[in-house]
Amino acid sequence: MFNKRVKIKELLTMQPDGQEVTVMGWVRTFRNNQFIALNDGSTNTNLQVVAGLGEFDDSLLKRITTSASLKVTGTVIPSQGKGQKLEIKATAIEILGDSDAEKYPLQPKKHSLEFLREIAHLRFRTNTFAAVFRIRHSLAFAIHKFYHEKGFLYLHTPIVTASDAEGAGEMFRVTTLPFDNPPRNEDGSINFKDDFFGKSTNLTVSGQLEGELGATAFGEIYTFGPTFRAENSNTARHLAEFWMIEPEMAFCDLEDNMNLAEEFIKYIIRFAMDNNREDLEFLASRLAEEEKQLPADKRSEMGLIEKLEFVVNNNFERITYTEAIDILLQSPAYKKKKFQYEVKWGIDMQSEHERYLVEKHFKKPVIVINYPKDIKAFYMRLNDDGKTVAAMDILAPGIGEIVGGSQREERIENLEKRMKEMHVPADDLWWYLDTRRFGTVPHAGFGLGFERMVLFVTGMTNIRDVIAFPRTPKSAEF
Amino acid sequence: MFNKRVKIKELLTMQPDGQEVTVMGWVRTFRNNQFIALNDGSTNTNLQVVAGLGEFDDSLLKRITTSASLKVTGTVIPSQGKGQKLEIKATAIEILGDSDAEKYPLQPKKHSLEFLREIAHLRFRTNTFAAVFRIRHSLAFAIHKFYHEKGFLYLHTPIVTASDAEGAGEMFRVTTLPFDNPPRNEDGSINFKDDFFGKSTNLTVSGQLEGELGATAFGEIYTFGPTFRAENSNTARHLAEFWMIEPEMAFCDLEDNMNLAEEFIKYIIRFAMDNNREDLEFLASRLAEEEKQLPADKRSEMGLIEKLEFVVNNNFERITYTEAIDILLQSPAYKKKKFQYEVKWGIDMQSEHERYLVEKHFKKPVIVINYPKDIKAFYMRLNDDGKTVAAMDILAPGIGEIVGGSQREERIENLEKRMKEMHVPADDLWWYLDTRRFGTVPHAGFGLGFERMVLFVTGMTNIRDVIAFPRTPKSAEF
Repeated sequence: MFNKRVKIKELLTMQPDGQEVTVMGWVRTFRNNQFIALNDGSTNTNLQVVAGLGEFDDSLLKRITTSASLKVTGTVIPSQGKGQKLEIKATAIEILGDSDAEKYPLQPKKHSLEFLREIAHLRFRTNTFAAVFRIRHSLAFAIHKFYHEKGFLYLHTPIVTASDAEGAGEMFRVTTLPFDNPPRNEDGSINFKDDFFGKSTNLTVSGQLEGELGATAFGEIYTFGPTFRAENSNTARHLAEFWMIEPEMAFCDLEDNMNLAEEFIKYIIRFAMDNNREDLEFLASRLAEEEKQLPADKRSEMGLIEKLEFVVNNNFERITYTEAIDILLQSPAYKKKKFQYEVKWGIDMQSEHERYLVEKHFKKPVIVINYPKDIKAFYMRLNDDGKTVAAMDILAPGIGEIVGGSQREERIENLEKRMKEMHVPADDLWWYLDTRRFGTVPHAGFGLGFERMVLFVTGMTNIRDVIAFPRTPKSAEF
Repeated sequence: MFNKRVKIKELLTMQPDGQEVTVMGWVRTFRNNQFIALNDGSTNTNLQVVAGLGEFDDSLLKRITTSASLKVTGTVIPSQGKGQKLEIKATAIEILGDSDAEKYPLQPKKHSLEFLREIAHLRFRTNTFAAVFRIRHSLAFAIHKFYHEKGFLYLHTPIVTASDAEGAGEMFRVTTLPFDNPPRNEDGSINFKDDFFGKSTNLTVSGQLEGELGATAFGEIYTFGPTFRAENSNTARHLAEFWMIEPEMAFCDLEDNMNLAEEFIKYIIRFAMDNNREDLEFLASRLAEEEKQLPADKRSEMGLIEKLEFVVNNNFERITYTEAIDILLQSPAYKKKKFQYEVKWGIDMQSEHERYLVEKHFKKPVIVINYPKDIKAFYMRLNDDGKTVAAMDILAPGIGEIVGGSQREERIENLEKRMKEMHVPADDLWWYLDTRRFGTVPHAGFGLGFERMVLFVTGMTNIRDVIAFPRTPKSAEF
């Protein structure tokens, strides 16, 4: 058995009583031919390993280079240096794997995030990305914990699908047909009967429709899986492959939906704050440092942790779409013609509008409800005014839309009418309509973009830096 | 706010003290114009709602049909009937949604699993599938809990990828290129530079290679995500889209790997036994009932719960591949020529061989290690004998292979040699080889097929019955 080691995170909480331990990890730095900073990925705090002068062969010491992997046995003693409680006095050092310092791409200096994106296979070994991905882990775990404890059922909705949940998605085709001489019908069109699934199939853009099938049997379900958009958007907020959480609740209206979403977001942020304090503090100082480069008016008013505490401790603002438009029309920004895009009732608000509401006007997360039906999906519940639907978007400072949801149209006549108006093929969705035919219930749900949530909590600014291996136009490396 | 209800599962644990509650759910049966069996998906145990004779309009009572959805307010009283502690004496009944009993496909009778597969959008509303999917949920949650508590990091490895982790997978193409006049290079081949990701891309067959990148930074990671095989296998054990859990551990050898896998499997089974007793008991009687149809020698020796208890309480058998072949060669089955396929050192064991070892010889889960290198993947660590690799498969009774794993080849010379021999393009995997160049470490991991695990725990026999919406050749419904 090889893995009899103590993780550095755990070791750092121990009392240094001269006990013997074995640690394994990668060298971050080696100073004065004596002091090894060792990291094993469990924490950003390196363990100081002391290789007593004259106690180890020069041939071994030469191999202790940045990123070399070591197995060290030694005794835990109080540290002489400051900033650390304990260190290891090495009695045995074994080189598990060498690392050629000349060739290793990560030097002990600051690298740009752009450069690190090109070596995404190694960027986990930096303090910034290690912190980001440990927080991502905590948020993911908190999501499962939150829903599990509430009695929601985790439903794996399909990834390959023949349906288009949004009614207008740009989708990736999934196929085993060859490009050279694909099978064709008599009229020359492609014969998808010969494709693997016997029909034309795509990657899912949302698990919602299938989620509704689950909710109308189990009461409350959630999904947490990958979703895909073949949108040619090369922005800091878009990915072609991203993870989404989609809870769906029977016996639930728009207000219940808002309450759940707010409670949920606060819960997972609090979980990260309780479990990743050190990583958050690291990212908070990183962000503060970055913002020093910005002109004063572009800097955040709050530090990262201050911002998270504010979100967790305050109610989200709740306004209707109509109120949001009124606020925009009354705003100094509008009056000074600072908005690039038009503002009037009926528009699909642009990023500049959402940011104004969230960052300038309310300075906190905002839930906007009751959008015009014409800019929303066919499945959203028509309000009594006949003009708006029971939609809700949650807008977060610095991120924009982080949640999109609605109460669903449970009345089959309304739903069928809306599908007809919006050219959604009812025949393909017979199974979806069945939920309205056999014991339909008021129900609601939303989708949270996981990477946007990770952006918000980590203070990172490019979405490619919060997913391990980003998929974007012209890029699918690793 | 709509959703002020108590879930039936919770209600059934209360003391019937005449307190007022509101419940919502779907009608399972309505007897004597008086007794409603209501189900809300939280448990298979229906709540008895009593609509006192003469207290409700006939027009309302007529609408209480199978699958109609109700909101019921009433008082909780001790039940007169047997088998239930309490019931609800209704004071108000609201029909949320009607259900035409003539058209509703699920009648209160036994339906075949094949029929229910065709109405997979409604099968969650049957006791069998409700139990299966609640157990599936528990297993999924237990997986996250197990790794979280051990300090493993949950890594989302990419779904769309340009690499083929297995070196020989049958893969689904992901593309936005048109079949009609796709862009071509001068030599007539397809120009994938014009495809969305600028290269030819597929759905992942495994997250392992990317998982190794994570493990060699964070120490220990796991994945839990969908994986895909475009194999034309129409069997009860294969899906084109399935979920897999892939832990990967640095500083870990084959023995550590086996220990972790065994502990992990026992943990999640125990979690389901602790949290889903009622559902397991339901499935156990269902299975016992099913097996009564079988000839005596085809029946299981143990009941479902007995089997799970046995697995949790006993060590898995651990044998080498060479020992396994010897056992087969010595077996009565071999001597009586009952095996269809050849048995000799070097074969890739067939299902009949694995089943013999597990079901006849050892009668418990078996871990087989040290397979011939020629039947295993390029990344498995070569043993000192030069003939075998440090692979491990875990075989489970009734299921066959449930886990496949190995210690990974951490020595770059060996790895490069093996890739060359097996025609795995080293240039495409430069990033994978980097982990061996810069501080390589002994490491290991495995993959657990989630649906096969759910099959094992639920006692279901067709893998299409343990995933919500199965994807198989010529089928991608819902």
